[in-house]
Amino acid sequence: MNDHGEEQIVFEIGVVVPKSNVKEEKETCDCVETLVDELRRVGLIVQRVSGLSDEFLKLAAPPEILGRSAAKMQMKKPTNIGMDLQFEWDQVDAFVKQPDGSLFSWCERFQCYRHLIYGIVNESDTDIVLKHDGIKFCWEVGESLLQRLESEGIVKLVFPLHDDTKRKKLLRNWALNWWDLTNQPIDEIYSYYGTKVAIYFAFLGRYTTWMLFPAAFAFIMQLVDFGSLQWIVLPVFFVSVILWSVFFFQFWKRKNSALLARWQINYTVGAGQGQKDLGMEWNSHQSPMDLTKGVAMDKKREKQLYQKYEWFGRLMRFRNDAIIILSIICLQLPFELAYAHLYEVIGSDFMKFGLTAIYIFIIQYFTKIGGKISVKLIKYENNENTECRADSLVFGLYFMQSYIGIFYHALLHRNFKTLRQVLIQRLIISEVLDNLLENGLPYLKYKYKKYRAIRNKKKCDKGSSSEKIHFDSRVEKEYLKPEYSASIGEELEDGLFDDFLELALQFGMIMMFACAFPLAFVFAAANNIMEIRTDAFKLLIMLKRPVPRASTTIGAWSNIFQFLIVMSICTNSALLVWLYDSEGKWKIEPGLAAILIMEHILLLIKFGFSRLVPEEPAWVKANRMRNTSQAQDMCSKQLLSSISGGEKACEGPKND
Amino acid sequence: MNDHGEEQIVFEIGVVVPKSNVKEEKETCDCVETLVDELRRVGLIVQRVSGLSDEFLKLAAPPEILGRSAAKMQMKKPTNIGMDLQFEWDQVDAFVKQPDGSLFSWCERFQCYRHLIYGIVNESDTDIVLKHDGIKFCWEVGESLLQRLESEGIVKLVFPLHDDTKRKKLLRNWALNWWDLTNQPIDEIYSYYGTKVAIYFAFLGRYTTWMLFPAAFAFIMQLVDFGSLQWIVLPVFFVSVILWSVFFFQFWKRKNSALLARWQINYTVGAGQGQKDLGMEWNSHQSPMDLTKGVAMDKKREKQLYQKYEWFGRLMRFRNDAIIILSIICLQLPFELAYAHLYEVIGSDFMKFGLTAIYIFIIQYFTKIGGKISVKLIKYENNENTECRADSLVFGLYFMQSYIGIFYHALLHRNFKTLRQVLIQRLIISEVLDNLLENGLPYLKYKYKKYRAIRNKKKCDKGSSSEKIHFDSRVEKEYLKPEYSASIGEELEDGLFDDFLELALQFGMIMMFACAFPLAFVFAAANNIMEIRTDAFKLLIMLKRPVPRASTTIGAWSNIFQFLIVMSICTNSALLVWLYDSEGKWKIEPGLAAILIMEHILLLIKFGFSRLVPEEPAWVKANRMRNTSQAQDMCSKQLLSSISGGEKACEGPKND
Repeated sequence: MNDHGEEQIVFEIGVVVPKSNVKEEKETCDCVETLVDELRRVGLIVQRVSGLSDEFLKLAAPPEILGRSAAKMQMKKPTNIGMDLQFEWDQVDAFVKQPDGSLFSWCERFQCYRHLIYGIVNESDTDIVLKHDGIKFCWEVGESLLQRLESEGIVKLVFPLHDDTKRKKLLRNWALNWWDLTNQPIDEIYSYYGTKVAIYFAFLGRYTTWMLFPAAFAFIMQLVDFGSLQWIVLPVFFVSVILWSVFFFQFWKRKNSALLARWQINYTVGAGQGQKDLGMEWNSHQSPMDLTKGVAMDKKREKQLYQKYEWFGRLMRFRNDAIIILSIICLQLPFELAYAHLYEVIGSDFMKFGLTAIYIFIIQYFTKIGGKISVKLIKYENNENTECRADSLVFGLYFMQSYIGIFYHALLHRNFKTLRQVLIQRLIISEVLDNLLENGLPYLKYKYKKYRAIRNKKKCDKGSSSEKIHFDSRVEKEYLKPEYSASIGEELEDGLFDDFLELALQFGMIMMFACAFPLAFVFAAANNIMEIRTDAFKLLIMLKRPVPRASTTIGAWSNIFQFLIVMSICTNSALLVWLYDSEGKWKIEPGLAAILIMEHILLLIKFGFSRLVPEEPAWVKANRMRNTSQAQDMCSKQLLSSISGGEKACEGPKND
Repeated sequence: MNDHGEEQIVFEIGVVVPKSNVKEEKETCDCVETLVDELRRVGLIVQRVSGLSDEFLKLAAPPEILGRSAAKMQMKKPTNIGMDLQFEWDQVDAFVKQPDGSLFSWCERFQCYRHLIYGIVNESDTDIVLKHDGIKFCWEVGESLLQRLESEGIVKLVFPLHDDTKRKKLLRNWALNWWDLTNQPIDEIYSYYGTKVAIYFAFLGRYTTWMLFPAAFAFIMQLVDFGSLQWIVLPVFFVSVILWSVFFFQFWKRKNSALLARWQINYTVGAGQGQKDLGMEWNSHQSPMDLTKGVAMDKKREKQLYQKYEWFGRLMRFRNDAIIILSIICLQLPFELAYAHLYEVIGSDFMKFGLTAIYIFIIQYFTKIGGKISVKLIKYENNENTECRADSLVFGLYFMQSYIGIFYHALLHRNFKTLRQVLIQRLIISEVLDNLLENGLPYLKYKYKKYRAIRNKKKCDKGSSSEKIHFDSRVEKEYLKPEYSASIGEELEDGLFDDFLELALQFGMIMMFACAFPLAFVFAAANNIMEIRTDAFKLLIMLKRPVPRASTTIGAWSNIFQFLIVMSICTNSALLVWLYDSEGKWKIEPGLAAILIMEHILLLIKFGFSRLVPEEPAWVKANRMRNTSQAQDMCSKQLLSSISGGEKACEGPKND
């Protein structure tokens, strides 16, 4: 029942094992041989590729093997009636196909692979002795082979492989397709990288497209002299930029819903989680459900337990938030203010440069340590979406780092010249540098690893052959490429954290000081068009294929952007007051009062607009409702009979 | 299969028909006889009661009849596994029982009764000729008998009857149980009046309980002299009152969820609708679903249609909002301001009194007309919850009416003396008056109707018997009692509209001017304790039993209260500025700046708190999740086979 007549086997997973340099003793069971045999036994197609110093097992699986594994995992998949049901291989036609025609999405496939690979256990009655390079160890009954081998250091890495045909196609259509500007082949990105990456690029594309409007406005403002109306231009710009951002966010949420509907992913809008992590032991937190499992317990007791659990969790969260926020305020704030103050005071440019260098050096460690501490704190909370929490708190760190200096110049010193200087400096330098580093650093890392591998090889061969050593195998090259990992630690987030962080910091920079430096929008728009290509290039060429994650929204970043919008209403109001009240006399009179009223109206619009335009387009909602009612109607009767038949009577005592 | 061995038949529906005064011609089929026969034929128990000028049919139904009717209506009911499924009489054990042990809630029972009564159609092949008082008319094939009789004016009213045992119990436990203060037997209220009324009283009780805290604070403020700290007392009061209101609302939402969970009502939090109207032709709006029904249509076309429909609806809403808001601003605002100005200018108290009388007279008509116009406008929109929209817009009217004058005194004239005067006047007079009117008016109406009925009777009998005529039948007394109807028209809302309106106006009054008159909280608390009893008394004694409505939340009032909280943050900040800046010099300096910062922090807390404490308690959510997954697991396999068996293949073209 092979559904897809694929001409060519696509290897999707790579396993790195050491090259067995003792070639003679083939007859004894080397553990790599055992691994390969076991992998073949579960139905995987294994190709062994010998690299310079390691051997690579490339794995592929026919659809049926994946399907059976999915059924065993009790994976839930959307069906044609719209409801998520447990996958069954026999009923494969009932399940929705991916936009590209395959049965499983990349995310699901990866999950199945992991289940298959890590599901190889010793099913015999006795422990099996494996050996490698002469060292013997024991594969216990019921133990996972791969975990054993990983802990022995024999399996160095299991990583997803690039699919070369698809990658080249994406490279052509996406990374090198400069003429499309903000248009991207989102569906293809989705089927190659999974939802989380696709959602990021969809967001980036949308954001950049929308950015063109305020950029054009700012550009016109710069060029045209409005004569006697000049005084009103800045307030108009402020209002229109805020409205722009509010509209953009609400419409992004709608776009997000529409994308998910297109990809046939079921999610509920209000729930807001949409976070499932794959391939990691995610639900290791103790929930009261587990605690009470098996124990016969009355409803009241259970409710109390839940309430205790809920409020305890909230207390923990509150404590952690307090620790982190306090340490940001007590440790980071003085440091940042000291830097800003010194920068303001010091006269010579050379000294300023030195100061900035020292500052950047220190702050990098500071944020990294801070980020790691917050991630650690959060990991012990009972959160449903730890990722979101971590993102928010770490953003707090970066927020302080990026903006406190600017606030200092803008609000305390009213030094608009320095403010603009700092803004330009940050926008241009940081973003150009970032883009360079983003691609350059991985490339250098890759080059270094390659160089080291070749040197090692040479050392081993010891001049036996003096010709230049080349990498023949694509898989080894991929193995040497860096991973797509976050700067704050790999446990919670992948590299998207840094990409989103960059976007959020940029957004804050241009929005919060919009009135001081409208041209920032032009820089940002240009930068984002670049960003799309460089990020695409990075993912396609520079890095290993990332492990797919199934997040269906932009998560905490949505809240962070909303927060920045609110902040920017307040800061821009303050900036306007500062600008028009140049004598510093703090007269309220028409000016200040008007600005205050405007601020309040904008805040009202910000919070009211989401009520006006819902996050879910009507057609998505109608679809969802129809699906639900259809499913309910279909199973209503069967369910009823099974409830009243199979279940113990839960009726009240009045049933006589 | 009679589940409940009830000893006594409870008649729950009354039908009013004219007394047939021609007693001789019994053999011809009088339409009342036909009606009674038909009602008996569907299984209802009919009791005929002869009143003074009308005859009353009291109806009751055994559980099985109701159950079969519910099954025919395809009513959805929560089952023991937590999912709402279509009711089936054979599988009755699978469905959740009400807290009081009955199978159907009062809401559902009423629905079933209506379905039974209005479902009597002429099933024969020919039209049947009915006659009444010598007038003949035709009951056409397939026509509903009751609708025909209603249009002929023979059936005057179908109304729910009070259940005397339950009513007396409630009277004892609730309306006359003054010692419980804010405690009420909510579960009993729910089973007697349905969700909407029960939710109102639960809200009122909660609100009053919480109100005791700020009332105590205000009382202490009034009594104690804080000496040198006096200047900080008012800001502290302001902050604590705002925090109080924010906490109260979030916790009310949790309480609401908990109540619904206790009553086993399934609803989704985010959806926010929870509005189902019973017994009315509610879904008469055209939805694009209906338009496209039957037409084979591709997905893209359907999506476009939905989008068009969605945005057109939004445009309509926007237009209506604009019309109403503009007319409020252009018509009502000048009028209110003129009144407030005249009140300020006129010296003599007598003139003031006269002015107020004229004002009250005019404003009553004004708001009534305004309310009706807005309800009319809204009725032609394509809204899912027309009720909510109507409430919000009508509240706009009342908002202007109630507060503009006060704003005028407070903000423009800075006349705190008049402000306090007006507040006291409004709070005491309006609320005492309201409470009196609420119970007095229905009583007078009832008395008048009774008097008229007796007079009519006397006229007919023309002195044949001179003894005093008494009402013997309870049902006739109930018939003469007024209905629980809203002042803005009966189509959309019942009397709860006015009760909620009263609460909201009170809340706005005490919150928005908290800093000017803290003692208002004490008045409000006292008034609300009264209010619980008077409202209970009104519902139990003064009025007909209201038609049950199935609204599961407080609907638009939640938004209105939230809006009032935000408003009160702003107005109180302004009041504080006014108070501390008595010279009117508008210096910003520490004072104003501090107040502004405080305002912004409070706004942040207002909007942030709902993220911190979710609207649904953890145990309710856990329950819901468990139920959903349980249901899905149960029906997964059956559903799958029926999908892949019965459905046409929806797979993509790649399936080869």
